[in-house]
Amino acid sequence: MSEIDQNPDLRIEAEEGSYELERSDVSAILLAVERGDQAQLTARMDPLHAADIADLLEQISSSERRRLVHLYDREFDGEILSELDESIRDEVIATLRPEVLADAVRELESDDVVDLIEDMDEEKQDVILDVLEDNDRVAVEQSLTYPENSAGRLMQSEVVTAPEHWTVGEAIDFLRAQDELPEQFYHVTLVDPRHKPVGNVTLGKLMGSRRDVLLWEIIEDVFQVIPAMQDEGEVAYAFNQYHLISAPVVDEDERLVGVITIDDAMIVLDEEHEEDILRLAGVGEGSLSDRVINTTRQRLPWLAVNLLTAIAASLVIAQFEAAISQIVALAVLMPIVASMGGNAGTQSLTVAVRAIATKDLTGSNMWRVIRREVLVGLINGVVFATVMGVVGLVWFGSPALGYVIAVAMVINMVVAGLAGTAIPVALEKFGIDPALASGAFVTTVTDVVGFFAFLGLAAMVLL
Amino acid sequence: MSEIDQNPDLRIEAEEGSYELERSDVSAILLAVERGDQAQLTARMDPLHAADIADLLEQISSSERRRLVHLYDREFDGEILSELDESIRDEVIATLRPEVLADAVRELESDDVVDLIEDMDEEKQDVILDVLEDNDRVAVEQSLTYPENSAGRLMQSEVVTAPEHWTVGEAIDFLRAQDELPEQFYHVTLVDPRHKPVGNVTLGKLMGSRRDVLLWEIIEDVFQVIPAMQDEGEVAYAFNQYHLISAPVVDEDERLVGVITIDDAMIVLDEEHEEDILRLAGVGEGSLSDRVINTTRQRLPWLAVNLLTAIAASLVIAQFEAAISQIVALAVLMPIVASMGGNAGTQSLTVAVRAIATKDLTGSNMWRVIRREVLVGLINGVVFATVMGVVGLVWFGSPALGYVIAVAMVINMVVAGLAGTAIPVALEKFGIDPALASGAFVTTVTDVVGFFAFLGLAAMVLL
Repeated sequence: MSEIDQNPDLRIEAEEGSYELERSDVSAILLAVERGDQAQLTARMDPLHAADIADLLEQISSSERRRLVHLYDREFDGEILSELDESIRDEVIATLRPEVLADAVRELESDDVVDLIEDMDEEKQDVILDVLEDNDRVAVEQSLTYPENSAGRLMQSEVVTAPEHWTVGEAIDFLRAQDELPEQFYHVTLVDPRHKPVGNVTLGKLMGSRRDVLLWEIIEDVFQVIPAMQDEGEVAYAFNQYHLISAPVVDEDERLVGVITIDDAMIVLDEEHEEDILRLAGVGEGSLSDRVINTTRQRLPWLAVNLLTAIAASLVIAQFEAAISQIVALAVLMPIVASMGGNAGTQSLTVAVRAIATKDLTGSNMWRVIRREVLVGLINGVVFATVMGVVGLVWFGSPALGYVIAVAMVINMVVAGLAGTAIPVALEKFGIDPALASGAFVTTVTDVVGFFAFLGLAAMVLL
Repeated sequence: MSEIDQNPDLRIEAEEGSYELERSDVSAILLAVERGDQAQLTARMDPLHAADIADLLEQISSSERRRLVHLYDREFDGEILSELDESIRDEVIATLRPEVLADAVRELESDDVVDLIEDMDEEKQDVILDVLEDNDRVAVEQSLTYPENSAGRLMQSEVVTAPEHWTVGEAIDFLRAQDELPEQFYHVTLVDPRHKPVGNVTLGKLMGSRRDVLLWEIIEDVFQVIPAMQDEGEVAYAFNQYHLISAPVVDEDERLVGVITIDDAMIVLDEEHEEDILRLAGVGEGSLSDRVINTTRQRLPWLAVNLLTAIAASLVIAQFEAAISQIVALAVLMPIVASMGGNAGTQSLTVAVRAIATKDLTGSNMWRVIRREVLVGLINGVVFATVMGVVGLVWFGSPALGYVIAVAMVINMVVAGLAGTAIPVALEKFGIDPALASGAFVTTVTDVVGFFAFLGLAAMVLL
């Protein structure tokens, strides 16, 4: 107990409800930085987890960050680098003195070093590789031979294995005799004589079984082998779908080369989701700590696509200038039809994009889902067409106008359901990420159809 | 090895690249169902993981599902129920014979039973509780006393603990002497005499340490205690932020009541993300397997809000009917200004909503982020204003019109950056989920400002 009391710094306070950094803590730290008070800064920073320090560094201004890192550098923990956003990380690495950086990097596990340096240019990579111990450097270099975002990049090369014919007793004696075991491991992986993984035994099962039990009698029911070339998104999917805790990674000859654990998979799952959300909004990768000019550039392509979309819609409107100049109410009402279609389309497409990502929308049920979305569009279309027909009638006193807007609304919302589902499915078929591109297509369709249906009907009925 | 070869069914084939159910497998299964061929159906279903069977059940039609469950019911595994979407799950439970359901439920861990029955009405809950063994029923009932979506609902009550003063040898002997250990556990939790958790020792460290080492000498650096009343979203955040593998759950007196493991946290993280994406699109919870009428109802409120928004924008347009009837080009061009603002606003708000969820956007850096987004809006606004000014000039041959649309565009995109950040921040302050409500507010602002700026400037300059 005494040791624990001496180390209160190592624990994160469990405030009920929130893990957010307290604004007062941030202020106290910035005050210490401003005053150049190293002792105070260290006292304030030490209780924080590396992930929280990384968040803090991301939230303060660039000049505060430089001064903080400078003042804190003797204590600088390698894990903080792993946790930082890329843009900030490069800046911090440039600020750290070389010997501090070397110390920080040497503390990291090989898979974290890979994550740290994989996007650096070769020159910077070499600086970091040079400070590593030989076996770590080999592991990192090996990992870097696999493609970016592959299982090979994600895995750690340290695996605890046992021959498939061993008993529980043999495995326990073997483990107890090791000088050094990996920091974190949950399974002993059974391998055949060719070093092909054939099963996993959890440490808990090992602990709970008699010495004479054969390891293969207590292997896990679910055992998933990951090919080293598999995309990390698929790896995360497998962990999430099959509730894996760790999975062996194999090369092309099915030989064991490493292991991926659920904590790595969870990080990937989180990143993939983040990417999906941002892509759906046309934001690309990016984070709050990117430089303004980079953010501006990232968002520009999507806005450019949207401008073309909007101009296409305007060209449709331009065909009906004569009608609009006679009945200005058309100009007043037409954005409503387009907007409702756009929203209904976005609803359908978001559901479809998610269902594709979670493999719930497949070739087997595509037509059922499309029919379903069209039906939802039709029902909601009729509801809002009725509302809007009445609004049109009351506002402009013209039953014909009310009728026109109601029919246009139904048409556009049915089209929205159809386009919102069919477009992402089609993009996926052509190998284009539906999260990235669906939005532009779907709103183009709902804008064009919305304006055309409303103005076209109006021109036919009202003029 | 022989046992493994006899059990090829237990492994999931590691196809490179994809875990999606093969369409041919689905067809073969449906064919077996159609023919009433129980042997063939069982042969086809057995190799599948419960999660894949659940996906299959979600993807087929309701009548196919009923026949499949009926034909397969002798083999029906409780885990399939856990993996099913709620709407389908109720249907399947209603289809299963009572004794099959009882068998299926008895196979589940107590936290999975909680997940299964927490949304049922009391009568149905009792049916399931009655089939459980006494200690399981008590654990489930205990868990149900905690609020929905709390850590208490998420935890398993089986925890492996050791007194804080024990040595590695004592702990190992204790574990080896147990008749039954939990299915999955990764840590031994050290407790003080009041049963308050004070540290975690991983099984790997236990295996790798000498018998005379004290447990508190090898506790994990990062130790996070979770209050039972904490929201599950915060729990998932803590696991993701601090890379936890398992964490003890405590009651109000800080006494140990259960444990949450990373696999449960990963499921919650996945659900929270799903919710965020769907809420941003105004879809609410829902899934592809909900009934059409439920989906229609879920989407209706958001469309209703959008209708009000669109009508508000139309009221702005209506103020300028005179201007539009003189210059119809205004009607043609005005949707472009609104649309560009809407898109830029959605970009800003998505980034802001995500940053709030990951606690990267806080009181400490709010103003810096708002300034940043406004600047991004200004730069992109100037770029697209220039493009659009030229388009306006060439298309309608009026320099004044080009100038008006350019200025309106800059105004609206700056406002988009401001509203896209400030509105989610403000909603969060008032305790409203920014993912749910921001979209409607932001597009209202960009529509109204877009139409007002463009038409207002046009009325001033061009008439």
